[in-house]
Amino acid sequence: MSMNLIAELTAIVGDKGILTGEDVSQRQDGWIGAPACSAQAIVRPADTAELSAVMKLCYEQDQTIVVHGGLTGLVNGARTTSNDIVISLERMRNIVEIDAQNRTMTVQSGVNLQTVQEKAEDEGLYYPVDLGARGTATIGGTIATNAGGNRVLRYGMTRDSILGLEAVLADGTIISSMSKVLKNNTGYNLPHLFIGAEGTLGIVTQAVLRLRAKPLGGATALVAVEDFESLSKLLNLAESGLGGGLSSFEVMWHSFYDLVTGTERHRAPIPAQSAYYVIIETQGNSNEQEQERLEMLLGDALEQELISDAVLTQSDSEREKIWAIRDDVEALFELAPIHGFDVSLPISAMESYVEKLQAGLDARWPDNRLIVFGHLGDGNLHVIVTQVPASDKKGVEELVYGGLNGLGGSISAEHGIGLDKKPYLQNSRSPAEIALMKQIKQTMDPKGLLNPGKVLS
Amino acid sequence: MSMNLIAELTAIVGDKGILTGEDVSQRQDGWIGAPACSAQAIVRPADTAELSAVMKLCYEQDQTIVVHGGLTGLVNGARTTSNDIVISLERMRNIVEIDAQNRTMTVQSGVNLQTVQEKAEDEGLYYPVDLGARGTATIGGTIATNAGGNRVLRYGMTRDSILGLEAVLADGTIISSMSKVLKNNTGYNLPHLFIGAEGTLGIVTQAVLRLRAKPLGGATALVAVEDFESLSKLLNLAESGLGGGLSSFEVMWHSFYDLVTGTERHRAPIPAQSAYYVIIETQGNSNEQEQERLEMLLGDALEQELISDAVLTQSDSEREKIWAIRDDVEALFELAPIHGFDVSLPISAMESYVEKLQAGLDARWPDNRLIVFGHLGDGNLHVIVTQVPASDKKGVEELVYGGLNGLGGSISAEHGIGLDKKPYLQNSRSPAEIALMKQIKQTMDPKGLLNPGKVLS
Repeated sequence: MSMNLIAELTAIVGDKGILTGEDVSQRQDGWIGAPACSAQAIVRPADTAELSAVMKLCYEQDQTIVVHGGLTGLVNGARTTSNDIVISLERMRNIVEIDAQNRTMTVQSGVNLQTVQEKAEDEGLYYPVDLGARGTATIGGTIATNAGGNRVLRYGMTRDSILGLEAVLADGTIISSMSKVLKNNTGYNLPHLFIGAEGTLGIVTQAVLRLRAKPLGGATALVAVEDFESLSKLLNLAESGLGGGLSSFEVMWHSFYDLVTGTERHRAPIPAQSAYYVIIETQGNSNEQEQERLEMLLGDALEQELISDAVLTQSDSEREKIWAIRDDVEALFELAPIHGFDVSLPISAMESYVEKLQAGLDARWPDNRLIVFGHLGDGNLHVIVTQVPASDKKGVEELVYGGLNGLGGSISAEHGIGLDKKPYLQNSRSPAEIALMKQIKQTMDPKGLLNPGKVLS
Repeated sequence: MSMNLIAELTAIVGDKGILTGEDVSQRQDGWIGAPACSAQAIVRPADTAELSAVMKLCYEQDQTIVVHGGLTGLVNGARTTSNDIVISLERMRNIVEIDAQNRTMTVQSGVNLQTVQEKAEDEGLYYPVDLGARGTATIGGTIATNAGGNRVLRYGMTRDSILGLEAVLADGTIISSMSKVLKNNTGYNLPHLFIGAEGTLGIVTQAVLRLRAKPLGGATALVAVEDFESLSKLLNLAESGLGGGLSSFEVMWHSFYDLVTGTERHRAPIPAQSAYYVIIETQGNSNEQEQERLEMLLGDALEQELISDAVLTQSDSEREKIWAIRDDVEALFELAPIHGFDVSLPISAMESYVEKLQAGLDARWPDNRLIVFGHLGDGNLHVIVTQVPASDKKGVEELVYGGLNGLGGSISAEHGIGLDKKPYLQNSRSPAEIALMKQIKQTMDPKGLLNPGKVLS
């Protein structure tokens, strides 16, 4: 990159809009442990018009671009090289409009998830996408990665909460699809093309978010289950029995529950002697009604011998204690080095998948420890392998991803492809699909300037 | 088209797989009143492999193709010329698999919607997409048009019930994206590209449908509302107060209610003297519980003076009588010629939109009659204009679509674009969006062979 380009970029965004030198290298390319940012400059446009002008200039000069949001991704999707410039949306974080009557919020991409959640709550409304990194992850990042989280079962992925968006293409063209309506059958759905594309087809600058009615109450239980078949039946019972109220069905394999409740941070609400533990949560119009519905469900489940034990929480603090077990990633980090995965597969295949994976690991690393938990209702498992050397990463990956072949599952349920999962893309997508993806990439980014090397080769 | 092509097509699909001459012209190009099919031949492949071979042949010979499903579309999206051949999926109607544990159903595109609903019910499950033409509309057609219907508020459009699909591209390439999982963040989402594209990017041959838990009970009420602001508040109250249970919030303007209840087919459950009438329906785990929840909601609404009258149905037959009012399209057909529209717009803009439309109609056609009803919870209005000559179609369209400008609404909520709405596409989509759509079309169908002239020019 020429000094000339830096000068021209500065002419567009002003001194405040550009960082170079140490201001760049002091930043990272991702989450904890990521390397320093290698880009030549970080450009921070103030609005869509500036971003468009920046993109147009970069297009003319064949300049590659990596977008940085909150950098909480887990697949090295924001890594830079010294050829790249970074575009950061950190100055584009306006809440443009909250329309309570139509239940929409229009925001710039740089606003973080937690701010959106809080602004919605202030209006008595609810933005249902939620994940641990909520205070740092940006809306743009959640759109680029189609973020999932804890309530997908009821409200869907980020994709399902986006009514419209604005994106800037590689050549600077602004695509405004800022629909505020739920139903809009007028040709190709362009927002869905950008959602989950990890910044390789365009840069999302604004979005119209779909807000929901704020749940007025809820209820939470932790139950113990002795075999996988009962687990699967329990999910069906909960889906029917709680009507539309079921918002979480989080399963911890005993390997996970034993580990976390074995630390000093927690007391086991149910003794650690069962095969599976499930957090069941329902949201509705009052605590009393939801408590009653959940109690009735637990009664049915006990009668049908699907569960062996249950705790129905009676207070917010009891509820928080149960979720703290599920959310205790610290207990996992203490086992470092760990190999962590995020896969999805049909529920019917899960039990044998985990058994085969355990057998495969045992054959090669007799001391391994396999820890499994996840959003069972979504078919999403988080798989942690520890007591295997970090250098054996590839061997573990081949077992975890290879085991999915033929099951109709996915090597990435929530996290995306980035750089990390690119070598395994063909485990989830056929050659014809990958060829079509490349055609679309070629059409929309003919010079290959956007997030180069990510997702596709 | 050469006789040679017919012979070559016959070699692929067999005598049973091809219709010509009167067998073609006796068929129609659409719903009631559509013209006779003008195509040279109707090709009826038995499976995806045959369809792929047909497409490859047509691609080599620059042969244009129009797909026919159940032909219940409302925008002339299946019209043929004498240059085209029709591909009908009528021989591809296998239910490939019902996987009750994972709650998926895999079907060929030619199966009709009602069959899918019934097969799901047989397994104690539920396919939520529902519309009047269920007995004729095919799954492929509902996917190509992203069909909506009566339960979008709770379950979303067809798009939200498709986990995976298989499509054949213009050149015969088979794209298999038959994912069975809810979460699959592995590159670009190809199914969403085909859903709602009205057969212009590829032909959908199979789909993995997402089934839901079957609701075990429900409750239905008809209420009267005196002003629009109360209507909007009532929707918010119902969303919160019924938890996730609210499945329908159907509003009839008095113009519609008066008309339909004025026929001999119905008795008005509530006297016809209010401004708006709403069907509120909730689905949950038992009739008793839902009845109780809805009763509580109606009590709150009465107390807050949002409703002036209410009937809570006590039996299936009472429920059916109320829905029969909403579904009585016959009463509309009796007013022929009618001009019918399907638009969406933010709820906050609806009242003034309808008022301005009425004023615009009055200024030009003093005798006009404007009848409005729709899925208010989805922002979707059905607008019927009668007592205006059929020859004034364009003038009415300009008022109905022109009034949407600047509101963030859509000229087609559910029905699609086809031929009928193509002249108004720019009322809902920007020049940059249309240009990008054309680029995608050019990439995926470079010879312009698929459903030529529909959606885009």
